[in-house]
Amino acid sequence: MNTFGTIFRLTTFGESHGAAIGGVVDGMPAGVTIDLEFIRSEMARRRPGQNALVTPRNEADEVEFLSGIYEGRSTGTPIGFIIRNTDTRSSDYDDLSRWYRPSHADYTYDRKYGLRDPRGGGRSSARETAVRVVGGALAKMVLREKGISIEAHLSQVGNETDPDAIQALIARVKQEGDSIGGIVACTVTGCPAGLGEPVYGKLHAALGAAMLSINACHGFDYGAGFEGIGMRGSEQNDPFVPGQDGCVTTATNHSGGIQGGISNGRPITFRALFKPTATIMLPQQTVDVEGNAGILTMKGRHDPCVALRAVPVVEAMAAMTILDYYLMTK
Amino acid sequence: MNTFGTIFRLTTFGESHGAAIGGVVDGMPAGVTIDLEFIRSEMARRRPGQNALVTPRNEADEVEFLSGIYEGRSTGTPIGFIIRNTDTRSSDYDDLSRWYRPSHADYTYDRKYGLRDPRGGGRSSARETAVRVVGGALAKMVLREKGISIEAHLSQVGNETDPDAIQALIARVKQEGDSIGGIVACTVTGCPAGLGEPVYGKLHAALGAAMLSINACHGFDYGAGFEGIGMRGSEQNDPFVPGQDGCVTTATNHSGGIQGGISNGRPITFRALFKPTATIMLPQQTVDVEGNAGILTMKGRHDPCVALRAVPVVEAMAAMTILDYYLMTK
Amino acid sequence: MNTFGTIFRLTTFGESHGAAIGGVVDGMPAGVTIDLEFIRSEMARRRPGQNALVTPRNEADEVEFLSGIYEGRSTGTPIGFIIRNTDTRSSDYDDLSRWYRPSHADYTYDRKYGLRDPRGGGRSSARETAVRVVGGALAKMVLREKGISIEAHLSQVGNETDPDAIQALIARVKQEGDSIGGIVACTVTGCPAGLGEPVYGKLHAALGAAMLSINACHGFDYGAGFEGIGMRGSEQNDPFVPGQDGCVTTATNHSGGIQGGISNGRPITFRALFKPTATIMLPQQTVDVEGNAGILTMKGRHDPCVALRAVPVVEAMAAMTILDYYLMTK
Amino acid sequence: MNTFGTIFRLTTFGESHGAAIGGVVDGMPAGVTIDLEFIRSEMARRRPGQNALVTPRNEADEVEFLSGIYEGRSTGTPIGFIIRNTDTRSSDYDDLSRWYRPSHADYTYDRKYGLRDPRGGGRSSARETAVRVVGGALAKMVLREKGISIEAHLSQVGNETDPDAIQALIARVKQEGDSIGGIVACTVTGCPAGLGEPVYGKLHAALGAAMLSINACHGFDYGAGFEGIGMRGSEQNDPFVPGQDGCVTTATNHSGGIQGGISNGRPITFRALFKPTATIMLPQQTVDVEGNAGILTMKGRHDPCVALRAVPVVEAMAAMTILDYYLMTK
Repeated sequence: MNTFGTIFRLTTFGESHGAAIGGVVDGMPAGVTIDLEFIRSEMARRRPGQNALVTPRNEADEVEFLSGIYEGRSTGTPIGFIIRNTDTRSSDYDDLSRWYRPSHADYTYDRKYGLRDPRGGGRSSARETAVRVVGGALAKMVLREKGISIEAHLSQVGNETDPDAIQALIARVKQEGDSIGGIVACTVTGCPAGLGEPVYGKLHAALGAAMLSINACHGFDYGAGFEGIGMRGSEQNDPFVPGQDGCVTTATNHSGGIQGGISNGRPITFRALFKPTATIMLPQQTVDVEGNAGILTMKGRHDPCVALRAVPVVEAMAAMTILDYYLMTK
Repeated sequence: MNTFGTIFRLTTFGESHGAAIGGVVDGMPAGVTIDLEFIRSEMARRRPGQNALVTPRNEADEVEFLSGIYEGRSTGTPIGFIIRNTDTRSSDYDDLSRWYRPSHADYTYDRKYGLRDPRGGGRSSARETAVRVVGGALAKMVLREKGISIEAHLSQVGNETDPDAIQALIARVKQEGDSIGGIVACTVTGCPAGLGEPVYGKLHAALGAAMLSINACHGFDYGAGFEGIGMRGSEQNDPFVPGQDGCVTTATNHSGGIQGGISNGRPITFRALFKPTATIMLPQQTVDVEGNAGILTMKGRHDPCVALRAVPVVEAMAAMTILDYYLMTK
Repeated sequence: MNTFGTIFRLTTFGESHGAAIGGVVDGMPAGVTIDLEFIRSEMARRRPGQNALVTPRNEADEVEFLSGIYEGRSTGTPIGFIIRNTDTRSSDYDDLSRWYRPSHADYTYDRKYGLRDPRGGGRSSARETAVRVVGGALAKMVLREKGISIEAHLSQVGNETDPDAIQALIARVKQEGDSIGGIVACTVTGCPAGLGEPVYGKLHAALGAAMLSINACHGFDYGAGFEGIGMRGSEQNDPFVPGQDGCVTTATNHSGGIQGGISNGRPITFRALFKPTATIMLPQQTVDVEGNAGILTMKGRHDPCVALRAVPVVEAMAAMTILDYYLMTK
Repeated sequence: MNTFGTIFRLTTFGESHGAAIGGVVDGMPAGVTIDLEFIRSEMARRRPGQNALVTPRNEADEVEFLSGIYEGRSTGTPIGFIIRNTDTRSSDYDDLSRWYRPSHADYTYDRKYGLRDPRGGGRSSARETAVRVVGGALAKMVLREKGISIEAHLSQVGNETDPDAIQALIARVKQEGDSIGGIVACTVTGCPAGLGEPVYGKLHAALGAAMLSINACHGFDYGAGFEGIGMRGSEQNDPFVPGQDGCVTTATNHSGGIQGGISNGRPITFRALFKPTATIMLPQQTVDVEGNAGILTMKGRHDPCVALRAVPVVEAMAAMTILDYYLMTK
């Protein structure tokens, strides 16, 4: 259950404060030039500490590739890689380890496994998403050759959709020691028609599962989505019209590029909802591992809006999903 | 890709106007009493033709079980079953088959497979969901023994949330020959803590994929979901409080019963968004299989709000998902 | 676990004496002409009652296709089919049901499931292989278009390898009320180089698992196999030599057409060992379901050498495996 | 395809002469004490260079665990680990890289991927089996707690079965610069009845696939196997007899502990056939990557009988398979 994908597969491992996190990409097509600089730039987009709005953890995030690459190109064998954890001030967490942090995974992990690594969320930490960004960067290299590109952006924070106001809102929430949710909108351009499988393998179901696997993602829709709830069928249906080169296209794209679970050649559009970060700096009511009630006040790193850093992760998961379906079909 | 689940698995087959639809349930625990009357009542909930608001197709939906049951109990071997298609007036579709119906799967199936069964949507028809209801009914029989129950209802149609007004709205839209979207809300009660897998096997990701695999489902959220976008973390976090028998519970349930992808013992709550039915009785702009533009006016059966009939299908998919995770864990 | 394959997948259901057996083929490429006559002839090869040497059960084995075929061609959607059980003299088994038949699956099924359908072996009956032959026939239709053919034959029975002596030996063993094992040798011709996956997805590992899943198959080897145990590496290695059209081939084929788990373009050769049929007409020592010792004497149908009827099943499993890998690769 | 198992899963990566090999064990039960000394001793059993009969490569084989272990116990999250490649004299292979070594995977990898890492067999090297031994050692720790043990030994080399003569034979073959095949026999003791799945998930089919995935393994049988080909059913059938504590057991064990694909509580016995090592020191006819014929004489490390080092690998694959089925069932 730590593996994602069918043909292009990413298996990940690693805890927030262990020796390293890492992954294995299986199913990378052979002969693809590995652009290390691109991987670094993708990692930089996700890394905390870039500006005042995100958590100041200083993650060097040096990716060490161990296999599957020979003379700068993929060989088709699995690409193993690790990222050492360097700045792991676990002492920040020492006195936390006996409290169940509200809306974190501490309690459910204890119930499931009977024990857990309490340092920094352990396996449930957003740190794991760094590995996804590596997998996504490899997928993007393949998709680029097919003319497929993926672009996500933060479209809403709280009830705010204006980009400038979004920045101001996040800053204000941070100052309050609180957190806030947001929505990441994503568009896949250049995807050919015919990707997706009927019934249980619908392309949008795969994209949905991919997004909902990201920490703090609590919702997903595509095309008109929840915002189209007020539309009639006569408004939401996308009329077919003759396209270029004898092809067929649609006049509108309320279907978000997917019909019957299969891509129709139009841009694929979807949204991922992220709830407010569970870690806040305000005192919270909770219980300890023995069931005693108390008040918990957390210190340390604080990301007021996890949706902000989720943007490259959304792209990474979308890239791996689209490539997986591409390889399944073509 | 016509198989759903990991341990409890449903494989389905069948087209809207073929000889039969059917399925195979693999992983049904042995020794469970098979309640045929319950299966019939679940099928009746989904069946079209029950009232003025849903499509008048008269589906007898007689389920014939072929294996896996001996002397009224499951044997642990696969349960094969078929449902004959009886009322398949395919002549309704004859003149449609050369037109791509807007926002249907006709065009994408043609692009993917190069050919298709044009009668009534073929494999992409909502007829397939009858098989899911059988699988869900079998899953519910097992869950019932564990004290787990699942209940869904239509919570919104268009912008309307009042039950009486919902009925009136659907009737009006039907009269207009148009269609409208809706939201089905679902609650799983009695689910123990500890179900779900970290990272890519999160319980809500599995529920999301299950819902998004249902025809016309375009969105999914759980807990506070999209409606909680305006909340701060300090409002949305669920304080832990001492529970009964030394257990821990939460004061609120904005997490929808799932934290870190794992159930926490509280009711699991989620929503599935259904877009307006693609089939409407109004003239629509489209193209034919040769790419010529034209106006299509559909006749025949007409479900103005597919969300209405989706209620038991949502329950069925939830039941199979929860049981699958239960069997994975316990 | 009642599903075979990854891209081309067969899911089966059904007990020996239930209403029907059947299957679902998922992943059949679209547009393939379905040759019903060929399916019938393949079924006839497996059917008991053809001659004096095999069990006289009269299985009509009429395959009813329910989906996935439109106007004589596959549509790419799942092909569901059933075969009704007609001649199911279960009274033959009535007094057997309380005894554990030696080297049958009665005891292990009871231990695994706590209950079982005792009629004729239930799910563990060789009757299930009829469904595999249907799946294999569909796979062969696709492979034929690619120039790939599969041919198996009974190469040994007991210590006998001469075809005439084999027939005589089986007849003698039948008369004795006893049974005997045999070896089925199979050759895949026309398979292109490059099929197979490194490490855990080796082509011969997949073929081995496919064969070992057939009732009574207790061994598998390929290429020189167990018979090559006395050879040195200098004898068994296959020298590469220039082939036709600039290709490379090998002077010998002790590798059985597979090197490093990947086909090399030479004929793929393997063997499947079948133990003596567990059902014999001689009195046997055993215990009943309550653990009391006794002597069991079986009556009814009797196949003295199950390897004889396994020939088309070996071909069917090989065809599905090769096609699955073909679709994975090409 | 670089992942093995369903519930207990090992994913591996790494080439013979790359930076490192490694793996990810997913599905390790939580709370198991990790015995590092045991892992070291298992690795030592497989390591080349222990005596005069195996390849002199000096592999330190230091396993670095990166995740999934906290305070000496497994946490239930994936266990990532790497083994650095230290002694990788790739210059030995420089002039080999243009020749296809007979009965190696060079040619088939080129045909499959279009390119490959030519150093020491790359991904197809037996070096990969070191990772399996780590996975197997972890599995054995869990099985030990259940009272299940696994023991393999080299039972035959060439036509020789006497242990002393086996050593002399291998020494003689080594001196000749040639190689020879062998058989590893394995017994699983303490396995409870009821493991295994009917039809396509038979326990022996899983064991067979596991063995056939090991480099140079060309055959598999269980119970009486190929050597029982001369037996009648009346000899090979295992009579059931009353066992201890009201249980049932068998008087003989020609079924190798598995009936109908499900364990019956008796010791599980199987054999894995290993062909002669492809690498020999004698001149061999072959072609180069451009198709030119020539004579290749290999130098460097030389294992005359790969079966010798395969013994712990056979145990490791058996351990992972049995644990996987145990976790599926119990």
